[in-house]
Amino acid sequence: MAIVVQKYGGTSVGTIEKIKAVAKRVAQRREKGDSVVVVVSAMGKTTDMLLGMAKEISDKPSRRELDMLMSTGEQVSISLLSIALNEMGYDSVSLTGLQAGIITEGFHTKARIQDIDAERIKGYLSQEKIVVVAGFQGVNANGDITTLGRGGSDTTAVAVAAKLGCTCEIYTDVDGIYSVDPRLVPTARKLDTISYEEMLEMASLGAGVMETRAVEIGQKYSVPIYVALSTEDWPGTYIKEYDVTMESRAITGLSVSDKDLMVTINHVPYDIKNISFIFEELAKLDINIDMISQTAPSHGLVNVSFTAPKNDQHIIEEIMNKIKERFEGVEVDVETAITKLSVVGIGMRSQSGVAAKMFKIFADHNIGFKQVTTSEIRISYAIDTADKQKAIEAVAREFQL
Amino acid sequence: MAIVVQKYGGTSVGTIEKIKAVAKRVAQRREKGDSVVVVVSAMGKTTDMLLGMAKEISDKPSRRELDMLMSTGEQVSISLLSIALNEMGYDSVSLTGLQAGIITEGFHTKARIQDIDAERIKGYLSQEKIVVVAGFQGVNANGDITTLGRGGSDTTAVAVAAKLGCTCEIYTDVDGIYSVDPRLVPTARKLDTISYEEMLEMASLGAGVMETRAVEIGQKYSVPIYVALSTEDWPGTYIKEYDVTMESRAITGLSVSDKDLMVTINHVPYDIKNISFIFEELAKLDINIDMISQTAPSHGLVNVSFTAPKNDQHIIEEIMNKIKERFEGVEVDVETAITKLSVVGIGMRSQSGVAAKMFKIFADHNIGFKQVTTSEIRISYAIDTADKQKAIEAVAREFQL
Repeated sequence: MAIVVQKYGGTSVGTIEKIKAVAKRVAQRREKGDSVVVVVSAMGKTTDMLLGMAKEISDKPSRRELDMLMSTGEQVSISLLSIALNEMGYDSVSLTGLQAGIITEGFHTKARIQDIDAERIKGYLSQEKIVVVAGFQGVNANGDITTLGRGGSDTTAVAVAAKLGCTCEIYTDVDGIYSVDPRLVPTARKLDTISYEEMLEMASLGAGVMETRAVEIGQKYSVPIYVALSTEDWPGTYIKEYDVTMESRAITGLSVSDKDLMVTINHVPYDIKNISFIFEELAKLDINIDMISQTAPSHGLVNVSFTAPKNDQHIIEEIMNKIKERFEGVEVDVETAITKLSVVGIGMRSQSGVAAKMFKIFADHNIGFKQVTTSEIRISYAIDTADKQKAIEAVAREFQL
Repeated sequence: MAIVVQKYGGTSVGTIEKIKAVAKRVAQRREKGDSVVVVVSAMGKTTDMLLGMAKEISDKPSRRELDMLMSTGEQVSISLLSIALNEMGYDSVSLTGLQAGIITEGFHTKARIQDIDAERIKGYLSQEKIVVVAGFQGVNANGDITTLGRGGSDTTAVAVAAKLGCTCEIYTDVDGIYSVDPRLVPTARKLDTISYEEMLEMASLGAGVMETRAVEIGQKYSVPIYVALSTEDWPGTYIKEYDVTMESRAITGLSVSDKDLMVTINHVPYDIKNISFIFEELAKLDINIDMISQTAPSHGLVNVSFTAPKNDQHIIEEIMNKIKERFEGVEVDVETAITKLSVVGIGMRSQSGVAAKMFKIFADHNIGFKQVTTSEIRISYAIDTADKQKAIEAVAREFQL
């Protein structure tokens, strides 16, 4: 009898009817003879509703108390799912993060899983119970309830699977991982498998579906992760170790993001201290810088460009005012109509020429690019948002995504 | 510096505005230099809402899972109250029942407090924090979340005060304990003090305000309990040890309840086994019998009367059908227009003649009574509901309530 961890997200348990539907799917799996651990998120908009209440009281609520508040969301959904399973005749028990032994470290509202004391889960499994575990939450060394921040429920699910040495199935509202967002390219191909590394690049590029940290834990403990639709039995995508059969593909996926803007600072006096000053100011206010480029010095001046989240535009502009005050003659340009287009593939390691092919595609279609950055298995380009659709179609066609 | 436990019920924390108002009151108390532990219930109708969700899934939801679900209600209110206190600049920390060390025994949804490990509460108090504790909930030896059932938050508050050796203040939507329900007798007198024993009789007679079990814990551990309005600083009522200064009163209070019906079974063959059979059948279905009387046997037959909750009328009638089948010639009469009127007072112990005075009042006003039962400090009468108002006014006037 195999053990499996299944995870259902907030939209999959958004209503009483949906919770009953999830219970049916879990029960079907149990009927096949597997031991099932189910990790669930809070129902639909619960987290937003709770946060709204806290914000009515305080602009900056205590983070410890926020965790106390937020964690009730999953506690409601685990108990309701467990009630539904028991009602269908399946012996089931729900566990909060604390009860499931999810030990965390780090800050409230963005804690990290340090370890899982899975004895209680294992005990219930050995009694043939279905164990329903609250995602997104744990307990710190002080006995305080913590939450894991974005993608927390996926992280819980993969970490529990790692501890139990089993597969983790993530059921969600998309039916798998695509080579490129099907909303952008309707003919996009769903991948049967993708390697952890590729998925990490895709996720960090904003491919949605799964958060980076859950994939990282999967990679670290070699947990096969299966991503599929929560409502239908369509085949999904396996995220797993790199496999030689994947090797023939140079490019596995294309990620597209409109979330960043690009800042260019012209005429900065060339001195490493000045460049350092700029990025320290940005770091102080927690601005997440992505692509960085710098021109060669000319007449003792350099131009620096970087991309950063559009959400932070207001803060970035304040910092830029400070920079303009400090360096006389500096000019700052903030462009918001920027799209980041990235091609990802482990095949790049062994297949050269992906960059050259990309440059040719851009030249052939008269698409200018503003910045390029690369990693071992990824190349990212910042282009004008006006060229976005043209570029996506050309790249998808050329690499048969 | 004194410690005080304050308890605010569900209506007192029913909205965000009300939570802020409670925070202000708690802060005022803190400003006086006292260490404050606050016990709160779930916001307003939260418990009903959660129960409604469970009932949509199952007619008979697992009680363990119901406790998991219900306990989120207080978890929301403690975190919001703590956020409000922190926002006002008061260092505050919230604790679930489990975190506060409320150890329970007995069944889910109606657990009893076995002990409180108050080390964590004491630790925070010594750090000058305001400690906000979830009422109504605890944890059993298995590590499962439990709830305490009716009046659970009062019980939590009084038990915590017992452990800390301090006063417990219950803030609610009534401004104290009255000698008689002011809705029935507008001139009713609010009591400055009432003894535990008197309060227990009043509470068990349905005087509302406080549940019996909280008062019992108060009595057992000599915790002074202060009951007052949550919204105004009007003087309330102290429930405490019997005090000689109370002795001059023969009657402290008058309780009135319309919740019971009266069943009379005529012509039961006189045999203790038969009487026992009747009450066993009622006990099997958990019917809470109150006043019982039996006539002297005549021609080998007796008449038996008892009162029981009107809520159970349907089940009681089914049991009576069974009794009619078993005993030939038996006649059953169920009267629903019954009111129970009880006078309570520790003074009865030393002042005789209360019963005689009551009989005279009833005779003077031509009020018939159907049953009488007495305890050391209480006399209860079942009368026709039609005579209720007349009887209340006469008794209140005669005993100056």
